Amino acid sequence: MKPLRRAAILAVGSELLTPSRLDTNSLHITEQLNLLGIDVVFKSVIGDDREELARAIRGALDRADLVVCSGGLGPTDDDVTRDVVAAVLGRPLAEDERITARIRARFEARGLRMPDINRRQAMVPAGAVVLHNPNGTAPGLWLEEGDRVIVLLPGPPRELKGILAALVEGELRARASGLAIVRRTVRVAGRTESHTEEAVRPLYNERAQAAVPVTATILASLGQIELHLSARAASREQAEAAVDLASRQVEEALGLDAFSRDGRTLEEVVGALLVERGLRIAVAESCTGGLLTSRLTDVAGSSRYVDCGVVAYANEEKTALLGVPAALIEAHGAVSEPVAVAMAEGVRARAGTDVGVGVTGIAGPGGGTPLKPVGTVAVAAAMPQQTRSRLFRFVGDRQLVKFQASQAALDLVRRMLLQ
Amino acid sequence: MKPLRRAAILAVGSELLTPSRLDTNSLHITEQLNLLGIDVVFKSVIGDDREELARAIRGALDRADLVVCSGGLGPTDDDVTRDVVAAVLGRPLAEDERITARIRARFEARGLRMPDINRRQAMVPAGAVVLHNPNGTAPGLWLEEGDRVIVLLPGPPRELKGILAALVEGELRARASGLAIVRRTVRVAGRTESHTEEAVRPLYNERAQAAVPVTATILASLGQIELHLSARAASREQAEAAVDLASRQVEEALGLDAFSRDGRTLEEVVGALLVERGLRIAVAESCTGGLLTSRLTDVAGSSRYVDCGVVAYANEEKTALLGVPAALIEAHGAVSEPVAVAMAEGVRARAGTDVGVGVTGIAGPGGGTPLKPVGTVAVAAAMPQQTRSRLFRFVGDRQLVKFQASQAALDLVRRMLLQ
Repeated sequence: MKPLRRAAILAVGSELLTPSRLDTNSLHITEQLNLLGIDVVFKSVIGDDREELARAIRGALDRADLVVCSGGLGPTDDDVTRDVVAAVLGRPLAEDERITARIRARFEARGLRMPDINRRQAMVPAGAVVLHNPNGTAPGLWLEEGDRVIVLLPGPPRELKGILAALVEGELRARASGLAIVRRTVRVAGRTESHTEEAVRPLYNERAQAAVPVTATILASLGQIELHLSARAASREQAEAAVDLASRQVEEALGLDAFSRDGRTLEEVVGALLVERGLRIAVAESCTGGLLTSRLTDVAGSSRYVDCGVVAYANEEKTALLGVPAALIEAHGAVSEPVAVAMAEGVRARAGTDVGVGVTGIAGPGGGTPLKPVGTVAVAAAMPQQTRSRLFRFVGDRQLVKFQASQAALDLVRRMLLQ
Repeated sequence: MKPLRRAAILAVGSELLTPSRLDTNSLHITEQLNLLGIDVVFKSVIGDDREELARAIRGALDRADLVVCSGGLGPTDDDVTRDVVAAVLGRPLAEDERITARIRARFEARGLRMPDINRRQAMVPAGAVVLHNPNGTAPGLWLEEGDRVIVLLPGPPRELKGILAALVEGELRARASGLAIVRRTVRVAGRTESHTEEAVRPLYNERAQAAVPVTATILASLGQIELHLSARAASREQAEAAVDLASRQVEEALGLDAFSRDGRTLEEVVGALLVERGLRIAVAESCTGGLLTSRLTDVAGSSRYVDCGVVAYANEEKTALLGVPAALIEAHGAVSEPVAVAMAEGVRARAGTDVGVGVTGIAGPGGGTPLKPVGTVAVAAAMPQQTRSRLFRFVGDRQLVKFQASQAALDLVRRMLLQ
């Protein structure tokens, strides 16, 4: 059988044709297929429309040897993927009682009865392999048509990822070419896009000429720069060796500004440093409103090092909960480095932790002044040996200011822990 | 000439087929076309590949009467859109000297000479109308083929938007039907997808038959259900009246479970209720780790009603910061309704606010027990007249449990405020 090399991704759902929704599943699918050396040659989004979907599936089967569909496997009338694929391939549908039983059990485990419409999710086209969905009611389906393969996955990302992960280790790997495309992301904090570009451009050019060439793309968003490196080689090992070398070189060129080359987020990197050093942290937030503590606690196992967080949104609470002297706020304003320092030291003392961190600023849209416009943020970190603070002026809307402020606070803690 | 009603959007660029880039231009294009009553029937992303692009354009011309392409109009060899469209339509390309002159002037204004490759951007297929690009070198192009229209736009969002804005006021409006499409989203909490579907299905059917028919799509993710309603009518006013009526009927059928039909999030709805009633809130969190307070403070103006948040991650902090008796934790376990109640009442008393809310649970992946598995969450809200609590068992990973727990806490507060 010919190995699978060219994939088409079809996302099904009328909501994905409105001005407010994007098909983000295709990014994950692409990443996974690339690891098996399968290129994505096109992607399409189709509404919940039988005729359009049938055309799209026929077109995809003409142009690709693997067609991955996401969405449209739910229990309602809108969910047409199963029916349309069966019709295009000319296969009858029949209810698989084992699937019905599994769906019913999922409802009953939550003390609910299964609505009758969920039986639709148990309909299977003849010859299809049922792919177990550990995270939801709709199973995935694997269909072969000559040398070509069609995979149907549910739309909810968690369900899709669970089923795809098993396929990538199993059926898909068995049908792939053995070639591999490997990508690596280097994440950067505390440097602009153009300064990152300047530092790494000589490396780009050198790596692009190597025996296993590595291509690089720079992706910038507020508060974070990412360098995406990718290599294609005869084996995963060769491709990995090439991107590993390139990412190490990039890391060297960027020094402390490169905080991860293994996919870890800044909160994961900070968490790992705290665990390594056996330290606990307490957080005092104002403008970030809980986001900083929430990011720290997004990491599994963070209860080992996160003691507590205090969101002192009202000024009186900065005094009552964190012991920031009212006179200090009076003298410097709530948004100032001295107040950020007092917050960090205050929460550290109250909680009795090794590390304290404080953030105060103006997230906007209101509250700015000519001297302290919206986006002004002071961050501070207090540790046994030293306390440090910095003042920033961020751009962007309220949520972007919150994100950048939490990023700056995490980055300050990271740099101090690395010293 | 037939009015334009059905559009296909093609995004061209190999970078859009990697795991890290999405075609976001299509959202803006969709919004603009919808306002003119033009539906987007499908979207595709194609690499910088002549053959694939030619197929995609032919397929789009079969299925839509308006084809909008973005990207691939740059000066390099990768930029193939102009050539491929000319080839598909069988039109010769010729250099338009006025465009060359304009591009040269743009370079000279920056003290640069125009690289020769930029002449490619001045090539125009026979019969095309050149669309001025105020923000870049590549002009857009408008081509008619019988009743169908093909529009080529550059990929950079600022350039694309500038050209499209002029088209929407000019050529596109003239060729549209005068119809308008209006969308409305009803958001639902505290009900499953299938139970929502069961309640609103009779309305779907009724509304789909109305003089101005309304179509409905249901979108479910953990912790939130959305009903997307859309109507097409002779005028924007008529379409709005139709979706307004439909969304009011849906709201009636769902009662308190429908929390918004104007695009507002649950945190915005809770914020507005607090403002209306002149109440302030304080938050005590454990498993949500700051997310609940962060969501409340994502809303502009939330400093009017958010007093403080306390993230008592360690059990001792529940006692120290919130006054939860250690014996209560001992007796019921940290994850229990009595402890959630004590947290809510404790933070309310300490902060002196009208409302206190408490959340405690097991976000996972560790920490579960047979009696209290991962996903077990207790929420409580304390108000002057009453305190209420509920115990949930959520599914999903750590971040999804955090989100659902914060959603449940906000929803409890909302329901109590509405009584």
